Parts: sequence; C-alpha cells; structure tokens
Amino acid sequence: MSGSPLLAELIDALRCLPGVGGKSAQRMAFHLLERERERGLKLASVMEQAMQRIGHCSQCRNFSEDPLCSLCSSSSRERQVLCVVESPTDLAAIEQATGYRGQYFVLMGRLSPLDGLGPEELGLAQLSQRLGEGEIEELIIATNPTVEGEATAHYLAQLARAGGVRPTRLAHGVPLGGELEYVDRSTLAHAFGSRQLLD
Amino acid sequence: MSGSPLLAELIDALRCLPGVGGKSAQRMAFHLLERERERGLKLASVMEQAMQRIGHCSQCRNFSEDPLCSLCSSSSRERQVLCVVESPTDLAAIEQATGYRGQYFVLMGRLSPLDGLGPEELGLAQLSQRLGEGEIEELIIATNPTVEGEATAHYLAQLARAGGVRPTRLAHGVPLGGELEYVDRSTLAHAFGSRQLLD
Repeated sequence: MSGSPLLAELIDALRCLPGVGGKSAQRMAFHLLERERERGLKLASVMEQAMQRIGHCSQCRNFSEDPLCSLCSSSSRERQVLCVVESPTDLAAIEQATGYRGQYFVLMGRLSPLDGLGPEELGLAQLSQRLGEGEIEELIIATNPTVEGEATAHYLAQLARAGGVRPTRLAHGVPLGGELEYVDRSTLAHAFGSRQLLD
Repeated sequence: MSGSPLLAELIDALRCLPGVGGKSAQRMAFHLLERERERGLKLASVMEQAMQRIGHCSQCRNFSEDPLCSLCSSSSRERQVLCVVESPTDLAAIEQATGYRGQYFVLMGRLSPLDGLGPEELGLAQLSQRLGEGEIEELIIATNPTVEGEATAHYLAQLARAGGVRPTRLAHGVPLGGELEYVDRSTLAHAFGSRQLLD
C-alpha cells in the first residue's frame, strides 16, 4: 500500500492467517482502520496473550493456558470414559454436537511415520499409563476415518486392551440427511455390510 | 472452545475481521497456535501499532502514520494532476494497475446525504482550496460508476471548473476481455453511444 509503510506491514502480517491472501488482507486492514479500531486493538492484545500464554494441558494435551485445562479439572465430567481425538478442532466438534460428558485425550496429530509422527510424538506413553491406572472403563476412539486415522485407531485399541479398557469406535455409515445415490462407494459398502437389525 | 477461556476469547476476537465467522475464526486460532506462533505475535504487535498510529494524511486524507503521507511528500510525483478516489482501496487499485505518477485525494466515502455524508465529511472544502491554488491543471475523477459515485463526480466536476481546473472522468465501456453477450445492458448502451472514431 503506497502511502503508509505501517499499513503495508499490517497487510503483509495479516497474510499469516490461513486462507487470507493479498486482497483479503487489504480488505481486513482497511475494515479495521475505518470501522473497528477498538476491536482491532482488542484482537491485537488477545492475540499477543494467546500466543505467549497458551500451552498444552498436562493431562489431555489440549490447548490450555493453565497446567490443567478446564475440562480436565472439571468435577462435573465423568472419569470412566475417555475420548481420543486427533485435534482440538475434533474435540470442539464433538463438544458442540454431542452430549458427551466424559474426558478427552488430544493426540495433536495421527500416527504417520513418514511425517516423523510416532507414538512418542502423540503422547501415547502418557495415555497408556493413564489407561493402566484403572479409573477408565471405556476408550472412545474418535480419530478420523482416513487411512492414517484408522491405523492410529488400531494402535489405540491395542493400547486399551492391554490396559484392560474397553475400546469403542464411532459408527461409520450413511450420513443422516444424505441420499444413497450420492454417498461414496466405500461408505455405502461399509454401511451395507454393517446393517443393523431393527427391533 | 471448551478447555481454554483465552482460546475462546481469541476465536471471538478474530470475528471482528470482515468475512470471518465462527468456523474460520476457530481455524485461524488453531493454525496460529499450532504452526505460526512467531508470526502471530508479529501480527499482534503490528496490528496494535497500526490501530494506534495510523491516522490520515493532512493533504490527501489517505491513511498515513505521518502528518503527510509518502505519496504526498514524494518529490517524484507530478503536482499538476490530482486523482480523486472514494477509498484507499481504489487508490491502491489505480497504483497497481496504471502508470499514474500524479497525486491523489481520497474522499473516504461518497456524497450520500441519507448516510449523513455531505461535502464537509468528504473534505471538499479542503479540495476546493487546493484546486484554487493554481498548481493543479487536471482533476481526474475516479469515483465509482454507481449512482452516488456519479453524483459525487458531477459535484467534483463543478468544483474543478470553479477553480479553473480541467475535470476528466475514467472512460466507461465494455471491459477488455469481456464478451458483448455477457456485458450488462446499460454498459453496452453507454459503450455504443460513446463509440469512438478509429484513425
């Protein structure tokens, strides 16, 4: 942006946000300067604090600014069920969509040897130890239904059985509201094979 | 976001950016925390400075952190031509697309009595005074080809004539690379009526 080096710097810095290119960054900068200076200042301050203070919960590995996140330290969550997810986004999706009241464990990735992600990087030793403590009865494995997610699920199920914990997996099948005609082949084949008896 | 109040605050604050809703804000926050903490900190600091320090150039009204913006204080820009635009975005578009080497005047809006935008809000007294100083020979009116933009252009042309300055307007017509079939009616009618003699 000719005219103001600082404005040019702001537009460039905004491009670190995912999905934001030159045009959007310019629009954002002008929008903030013209109409939302107060909220822009607030965003800058919250962002600085978040980048500096948010680490990982020592128990579930989710993002948290405290050593123990509010979900792990909450007394109203059940302690017999543990749900394993790949990322905080998946945790958020489950929290928003379901009535789940148990605890979580966030892998922050999936088993992917080619990317250098093995059991250590995903904190599986920590998970294994927790499963062995005897408090947890069910391990809900909610990794994504991708090749790597399934491999991770397989590994997690073994860990659970070794710790005497019952492993369960989210059901796969035809999405609600979908039309059979447009469901992909492998999902349809899976749903057909796993058909359930109506009572 | 369950787990971290500060993260929830960051996601909420990101929604002040135009075009960013809940899902995008969440994706941005996770992206910054997982992969771009350094650039996130940099963005926070630049944004804070920009919100606090960027004001308007006293001569052209464009955004500037100095009393006189770099375009107005540049010795390599012509002083006989002044281009009037509605917004800094329009200025940026002209700078990027054309080889224009003159000066600018940014209205920061358009004449729109219903929105309380009259000649005072657009700094037209200041513009009028500058036109009367005798240095400027041509006023290029680059307001948008909308109803309000055209009304503003009409007003600006009168100001220019009163100051003894030649007013010009960007050419309207069929866009380059467009197909006549898909050009809207009024543009086509205008282009047809304003046809030019080939030499």
